[in-house]
Amino acid sequence: MNVAVDAMGGDHAPEEIVKGCIMAVREDQSINVILVGKEEEIKRELAKYNYSNQQIEVVHASQVIDVHEAPVVAIRRKKDASMVKAFNLVKEKKADAFISAGSTGAILAGGTLIIGRIKGIERPALGSLIPNRKGVTLLIDCGANAEAKPSYLVQFAHMGSIYLENIVGIRNPKVAIVNIGEEKSKGNTLAKEAYALLEKEDLNFIGNIEARDITEGKADVIVCDAFVGNIILKYTEGLGLSLLSMLKESIMSSIRGKIGGMILKPVLSDFRKQFDYTEYGGAPLLGLEGLVVKSHGSSNAYAIKNTVIQCHKFTSLHIKEKIEQNINHK
Amino acid sequence: MNVAVDAMGGDHAPEEIVKGCIMAVREDQSINVILVGKEEEIKRELAKYNYSNQQIEVVHASQVIDVHEAPVVAIRRKKDASMVKAFNLVKEKKADAFISAGSTGAILAGGTLIIGRIKGIERPALGSLIPNRKGVTLLIDCGANAEAKPSYLVQFAHMGSIYLENIVGIRNPKVAIVNIGEEKSKGNTLAKEAYALLEKEDLNFIGNIEARDITEGKADVIVCDAFVGNIILKYTEGLGLSLLSMLKESIMSSIRGKIGGMILKPVLSDFRKQFDYTEYGGAPLLGLEGLVVKSHGSSNAYAIKNTVIQCHKFTSLHIKEKIEQNINHK
Repeated sequence: MNVAVDAMGGDHAPEEIVKGCIMAVREDQSINVILVGKEEEIKRELAKYNYSNQQIEVVHASQVIDVHEAPVVAIRRKKDASMVKAFNLVKEKKADAFISAGSTGAILAGGTLIIGRIKGIERPALGSLIPNRKGVTLLIDCGANAEAKPSYLVQFAHMGSIYLENIVGIRNPKVAIVNIGEEKSKGNTLAKEAYALLEKEDLNFIGNIEARDITEGKADVIVCDAFVGNIILKYTEGLGLSLLSMLKESIMSSIRGKIGGMILKPVLSDFRKQFDYTEYGGAPLLGLEGLVVKSHGSSNAYAIKNTVIQCHKFTSLHIKEKIEQNINHK
Repeated sequence: MNVAVDAMGGDHAPEEIVKGCIMAVREDQSINVILVGKEEEIKRELAKYNYSNQQIEVVHASQVIDVHEAPVVAIRRKKDASMVKAFNLVKEKKADAFISAGSTGAILAGGTLIIGRIKGIERPALGSLIPNRKGVTLLIDCGANAEAKPSYLVQFAHMGSIYLENIVGIRNPKVAIVNIGEEKSKGNTLAKEAYALLEKEDLNFIGNIEARDITEGKADVIVCDAFVGNIILKYTEGLGLSLLSMLKESIMSSIRGKIGGMILKPVLSDFRKQFDYTEYGGAPLLGLEGLVVKSHGSSNAYAIKNTVIQCHKFTSLHIKEKIEQNINHK
């Protein structure tokens, strides 16, 4: 299992990226990591650790794609960018997976232009896990298609169901459209037309879900366009962490609170974990010919480690082949 | 100050609606409430309380508009519905404000068809307050226009700024578009085109805000279409309350937790209040010729009381006149 990692992508690159890869190869001896990026910088980081030489390889790339660049242009022009070279390793079958904490737009552009879509898939989609009271919910699409057609949402539903069933082990996952009301007639044109299509599919489609019911875990897979999905994803993180900070401030503002807080510390810390994106690994871009995973922009080493380990599970469970089979079967 | 209240709208009508109105007239002697709905049922509820007869009037309406009915059809056909009669009281200047905890769609339809828009306003919009770490954020539109044009968002920004500045007292409020990235080039067509228009307006426009920054209070007024707004609004409620329940469960699952929880009880209860919609009153439908307020569907008496009291502030601060002036000035 070879994982190509963009060493230059993300807020804490290359330090935390390199460190996370070291942690991953130490944890799983069957994984080899190819670090792609500025050789000198990567080697400087690698020198800090003891690790099995055979598990880490460095591929030099002189350029970096910035989050502010126009994605398609950057992927096409910067032939020597770390992201482009890492994508090419997957395309040439020298790597089994691609990971980057860099620009979502560039990952989408590279995934589509260099790796390519599975035949029959209209658009790839980013699927992210968010916490609910009972476990996790898969939100798809979270970042690829800010504008979507109803038929895309149908494919997102199938890909999301396959992913969740295999990775999380939820049998026959409940699929819903996130909407502003439960009735079939509610919502915008996209939601209404997608509802009519999803009803006819061989899926456990339960209809619309209102946002207030997401955290109750009423649905396992929630489909939406990436504008809505990305807002829900980022709001989960922001609201979850702000709430915990607000609670901490309340606790620290009185002696009574401080005593209670001290006693509750382990409970609060377990709780915080549920809203910690670093626990969930990265978000796969489903629907591509190869495995492409987007890691959170502010990923630390622990998040990168989890993302690398996750790739192993993804390939060994043949998610891509199952999506292919589902599409061809129709 | 006469407030027409739809006694039949909401999950807990008429019991909690009537009770809330009793609470309101007891608290503010300058308010008169006109309860509109099934006379017998309303009078049965009123008989439970002692109150000043002069402050409560009952207007009989034999029909009720259900949340599942097609809004425009219901408003047009059910001439004797509590909502239609309450709207007519405002239109005929027999009441200064309209409140309902019933169907949002019917309130929008009635507001537009019976009360009418302020001249120059393209679409009215529902503005709701959500909690942030420093206070509150106004989210507009939360329920009226599931599909919006860029020019609507510009008007929402003006109406929202006027409302927040007057009601909450935030001078020169910071206006932002909720989007999937901060750069001007990010987002769907609506967000991009609205950005270009908002830049040119006489507003404190700060650009795009990502959902993770909402709770940090980076913006005071957030504009969006009602599909996105309603999802954010309901997710705030759902996630906020679920988080507190999850925390409670964690606390109750160990002896250590129970002791800490007992000590922290007052802190947690203060905290819960911030996510309790009943504290915030109702959401005004801004841009209409009269004051129309939507109260939460599951409003209890306390929420209704706050909504009735809020109407007084709205009219005494001349929000409608200020919106009219802003539109005519352009």
